[in-house]
Amino acid sequence: MRFFSDNAAAAHPAVLDAIAASNRIDTAYDGDEWSGKLDAAFSDLFETRVRALWVTTGTAANCLALAAMCPPHGGIICHKDAHIENDEAGAPGFYTQGAKLILVDGPGAKVTPEAATAAIARIRKDVHQVQPHALSITNATEYGLAFSADEVAALGELSRAHELGFHMDGARFANAIASTGASPADVTWRSGVRALSFGFVKNGGLNAEALVLFKTELADEILVRRKRAGHLLSKGRMLAAQILALLDKDLWLANARAANAAAQALAQAAPDRLVYPVEANEVFLRATADEAARLRSQGFDFYDWGTSEIRLVTSWDQNGDAVAKLAAAIGSL
Amino acid sequence: MRFFSDNAAAAHPAVLDAIAASNRIDTAYDGDEWSGKLDAAFSDLFETRVRALWVTTGTAANCLALAAMCPPHGGIICHKDAHIENDEAGAPGFYTQGAKLILVDGPGAKVTPEAATAAIARIRKDVHQVQPHALSITNATEYGLAFSADEVAALGELSRAHELGFHMDGARFANAIASTGASPADVTWRSGVRALSFGFVKNGGLNAEALVLFKTELADEILVRRKRAGHLLSKGRMLAAQILALLDKDLWLANARAANAAAQALAQAAPDRLVYPVEANEVFLRATADEAARLRSQGFDFYDWGTSEIRLVTSWDQNGDAVAKLAAAIGSL
Amino acid sequence: MRFFSDNAAAAHPAVLDAIAASNRIDTAYDGDEWSGKLDAAFSDLFETRVRALWVTTGTAANCLALAAMCPPHGGIICHKDAHIENDEAGAPGFYTQGAKLILVDGPGAKVTPEAATAAIARIRKDVHQVQPHALSITNATEYGLAFSADEVAALGELSRAHELGFHMDGARFANAIASTGASPADVTWRSGVRALSFGFVKNGGLNAEALVLFKTELADEILVRRKRAGHLLSKGRMLAAQILALLDKDLWLANARAANAAAQALAQAAPDRLVYPVEANEVFLRATADEAARLRSQGFDFYDWGTSEIRLVTSWDQNGDAVAKLAAAIGSL
Amino acid sequence: MRFFSDNAAAAHPAVLDAIAASNRIDTAYDGDEWSGKLDAAFSDLFETRVRALWVTTGTAANCLALAAMCPPHGGIICHKDAHIENDEAGAPGFYTQGAKLILVDGPGAKVTPEAATAAIARIRKDVHQVQPHALSITNATEYGLAFSADEVAALGELSRAHELGFHMDGARFANAIASTGASPADVTWRSGVRALSFGFVKNGGLNAEALVLFKTELADEILVRRKRAGHLLSKGRMLAAQILALLDKDLWLANARAANAAAQALAQAAPDRLVYPVEANEVFLRATADEAARLRSQGFDFYDWGTSEIRLVTSWDQNGDAVAKLAAAIGSL
Repeated sequence: MRFFSDNAAAAHPAVLDAIAASNRIDTAYDGDEWSGKLDAAFSDLFETRVRALWVTTGTAANCLALAAMCPPHGGIICHKDAHIENDEAGAPGFYTQGAKLILVDGPGAKVTPEAATAAIARIRKDVHQVQPHALSITNATEYGLAFSADEVAALGELSRAHELGFHMDGARFANAIASTGASPADVTWRSGVRALSFGFVKNGGLNAEALVLFKTELADEILVRRKRAGHLLSKGRMLAAQILALLDKDLWLANARAANAAAQALAQAAPDRLVYPVEANEVFLRATADEAARLRSQGFDFYDWGTSEIRLVTSWDQNGDAVAKLAAAIGSL
Repeated sequence: MRFFSDNAAAAHPAVLDAIAASNRIDTAYDGDEWSGKLDAAFSDLFETRVRALWVTTGTAANCLALAAMCPPHGGIICHKDAHIENDEAGAPGFYTQGAKLILVDGPGAKVTPEAATAAIARIRKDVHQVQPHALSITNATEYGLAFSADEVAALGELSRAHELGFHMDGARFANAIASTGASPADVTWRSGVRALSFGFVKNGGLNAEALVLFKTELADEILVRRKRAGHLLSKGRMLAAQILALLDKDLWLANARAANAAAQALAQAAPDRLVYPVEANEVFLRATADEAARLRSQGFDFYDWGTSEIRLVTSWDQNGDAVAKLAAAIGSL
Repeated sequence: MRFFSDNAAAAHPAVLDAIAASNRIDTAYDGDEWSGKLDAAFSDLFETRVRALWVTTGTAANCLALAAMCPPHGGIICHKDAHIENDEAGAPGFYTQGAKLILVDGPGAKVTPEAATAAIARIRKDVHQVQPHALSITNATEYGLAFSADEVAALGELSRAHELGFHMDGARFANAIASTGASPADVTWRSGVRALSFGFVKNGGLNAEALVLFKTELADEILVRRKRAGHLLSKGRMLAAQILALLDKDLWLANARAANAAAQALAQAAPDRLVYPVEANEVFLRATADEAARLRSQGFDFYDWGTSEIRLVTSWDQNGDAVAKLAAAIGSL
Repeated sequence: MRFFSDNAAAAHPAVLDAIAASNRIDTAYDGDEWSGKLDAAFSDLFETRVRALWVTTGTAANCLALAAMCPPHGGIICHKDAHIENDEAGAPGFYTQGAKLILVDGPGAKVTPEAATAAIARIRKDVHQVQPHALSITNATEYGLAFSADEVAALGELSRAHELGFHMDGARFANAIASTGASPADVTWRSGVRALSFGFVKNGGLNAEALVLFKTELADEILVRRKRAGHLLSKGRMLAAQILALLDKDLWLANARAANAAAQALAQAAPDRLVYPVEANEVFLRATADEAARLRSQGFDFYDWGTSEIRLVTSWDQNGDAVAKLAAAIGSL
């Protein structure tokens, strides 16, 4: 009974079916029928004209966007617990070719306008210090918190005032939307976001993520950068098909709701132990090493988070029985 | 009837089956059961201990290897018609962070020891000129020629003498082996090759290529670089499974033989028109614009190669009937 | 009697005087009195408003300009014998972070519109091939030929048509101007050049070169890049002072004329041996190894150029007696 | 009466004399007589065989060393107030091509073994997090504190244990040595330091710094990197001559003692206001905005340091009268 991470789950059957359906000869790279539908599909979803392209990882989506928004000599404001800072092996440094991550703190891995403003204010406006060129937030955050449209809009306002590119790492965008009920448009471009890494792999996809560009003029350069990074797959149709399958009839939203519901079930088992409110599909619980060991002895797998917390992540296909058992086990600690 | 490129073909059914079979929860990234079998599978095939890792594109495989072999300030000797020079959007410059491709000429896109030696001799041994650190060849070449083990060994000797890393771009390695009948070991590490990009996508794979390291001590650094380039997929098991399926019972070799046989059928239809001997699955024919138009009017699709040649590429699943028709059409020109 | 290179000559006494005169406390970096005069001094010389900044090497000047004109994924058209290709240790790759030099051939190291047009035509307009973003020429060329304003204008027209940044490496710009008598304005911005590396070190300077930007909006970014490359010196006033001293009363032009005159004296000694017309301060002569040895035995030092040519370079302070002796020795071969 | 920074001071007359003395034709770059003496001169000073090379800025010295010690995908542990983090415009990111600065805190900008150990312990040993490859400290620190040999040795021990390259930014190395009286050998290679940026520009030099390599096998690669970064000057002899002049009869030490003594005079005027002990040539004083204004009104120039401190830096040639007046003014606040 694994609660390590949603990125290890199976792909949804509809995704495998879509791959099989696209498994016939077509134009290579992204000149095929399926890839050609992505712009329209995401434009519909976001209620505005966007450009959208497939990549195979969130790291690639994040870094392609950031590299297009920030020159090698610039800086990117992000949270100190952001995935791009902690879990991408320095990929932003590679893709931007040396840009600096300007770290801010804030509860639950949320960048706040106050923290970002203070970080900017600390930077002398001269050639000796790296100047900020972009802002990146994660939604849902690394601690499972979802941004409201208003929260994003406040950061959007700040990014406009300081002429910062504004990127959202949406590895769990689906879980955030499922949680807040906000419209995808409100929480992104209507609030100033210019590029979104829209995650599918953690939500039923096999190996396709989408990079959605609200600032559509970034697309042509990013297509070049994607190729140059070795991320232009020959049979891109089988990535596009995955994404289209998950967008179809809002399967992405149904999957996210299922994962979120499982997390809620766990959260309700131990409201006093919650480190953060559970707004998406991640549950951080206070637990001693002994308590963690007791859970593991009952067959539950998960990560420790430091020495006094554990992290439980639920997936779109999390077994209901396992969730119920884990909830009970947590309640009994 | 498409003869554009083998990279647009369908994946082999056994590959889709393998993906489906691995579509259950397992450890993320490459900690899973399937990824864990790659080293052994390729060690068997190559009769020596190797390290092997999956990536999704040949560009990634090539450039990860080259970046590990050549510092940013070094040079990589390759043919002026090499894929890394012409068709990867400068990816070697991105991955190596500025290394220089030192171009040589030679018939059929083959690097010869003479050409490489001359290129090295032209470089002054000082800090003003970029010094060579690696050598990269393509087998089968971009014009469909296969290297013999002796030819590779001569270059291996040269690479040892000049302390060059020696890389083989094997996007069509299977077709080369199917053509020459050489043992995979003889044409690679026994002849001095230290890293091989072993292509599967053009030969029945969906989106998995293998980077095989005979110089096994490169592996740990390349694993870091792979992650940093955004090429460490969460569900790597579904890449590993593809490769294992193609290695199983030498399906990779059967597929390559089928593609090569189709190319031979075309070649025999017009021996006088051949620009190069047909040794793999690519056929370059002299044809006027008018002749090319006549073929297209009969339903055959392919690329022009300059103004007086055409390129025909056959795939593992090339329709036999279409091949026969094209052969006849060529014969009737 | 050394004819190796003008870059090894002494600095002009006026340059040392200027350094001494600026050797008092002032604002660090480029906030000082002398640095503050560069824009105006070069604007006067070029008859238009320019931005100008000091660096210590031509390589830095060239590469800062190119990096501001060409993204990491772009290409720079230049001659295959250009300094940036052959003698800067791959610095363009470092500064641009991986851009590609797209090489063309042409007599005397001159890029011609025909050669550049052909190079551009060979590049498919897709994401697989590196697209040209800049054009760089050297004036005087690496073989001592000076561009006429018309020749530059033809390339300027081409650069406009293809939206290429247009850079001139003027390591020997002074010698070119002294040779053709063209106005500095005509041969640069009036002909489409957007950035000029204006060399002083080979022409009486100690360690100051100027980067002159006709496209003034590049300046702010280049100031950042200069700092980031470690080229913002604390006591920049002593670089600016050197340049101002050489601009004063056209000392740069007088120095270049002296060097050119010495080259002419050598050229006239053996008109039949000239490989190229002598238009600046470099003389390439056909000479056998035996002939070269005979010159050396008489005390003359110079570089061989391949196996059947020698290169003689004259400096602003080349000893007249030595020039006369060498001319005589060449005449007597 | 300027107390902004020692980097704005005049060069010592002996330095100008040395430049003049080397102002005659010699081999270009670093093949000249003066450059050829650097290895021996520094080997004498450090009582061991070293390789030493000139560059024009401390940023270049620091970053060349770090790039040779840390791969693009690695991390460099340094203090959050280090010059390489705050005042080099991201140059480490440029030179290393994307390596990460792993920041630690500590009093007076000193890296402590405890802080470094804790930083290392926080990093998971996997491919998702950037692994440390180097450690860089500044001596004297950015707050004017000098490391003892024992303090350095403790960090040297740590760097050995974790296989980290160990670099010392010695922009004010002379002031540190003048302060502690430690032998240059004890505080560097005998304590594990492998590369030292030895500053001269802040201490009487014009535009020459030295990079001293105790790990001599780094030199060849760094020579290539220096050229590639545009830092190989044609007339390098006039940089080497500066350094040799300052090494001669320990002029560097005399200069540093003079600067330190001036700082002591200021410190003694207001011991209660000192933010840090004054161990080199920088004095940080608590002062209100009003107090700072009163000092400025008396003709003293200096930087504010935040809102309640001021920074005073003294130079080798600081006018004694001005120092006495400033000391008196501070005492009278």
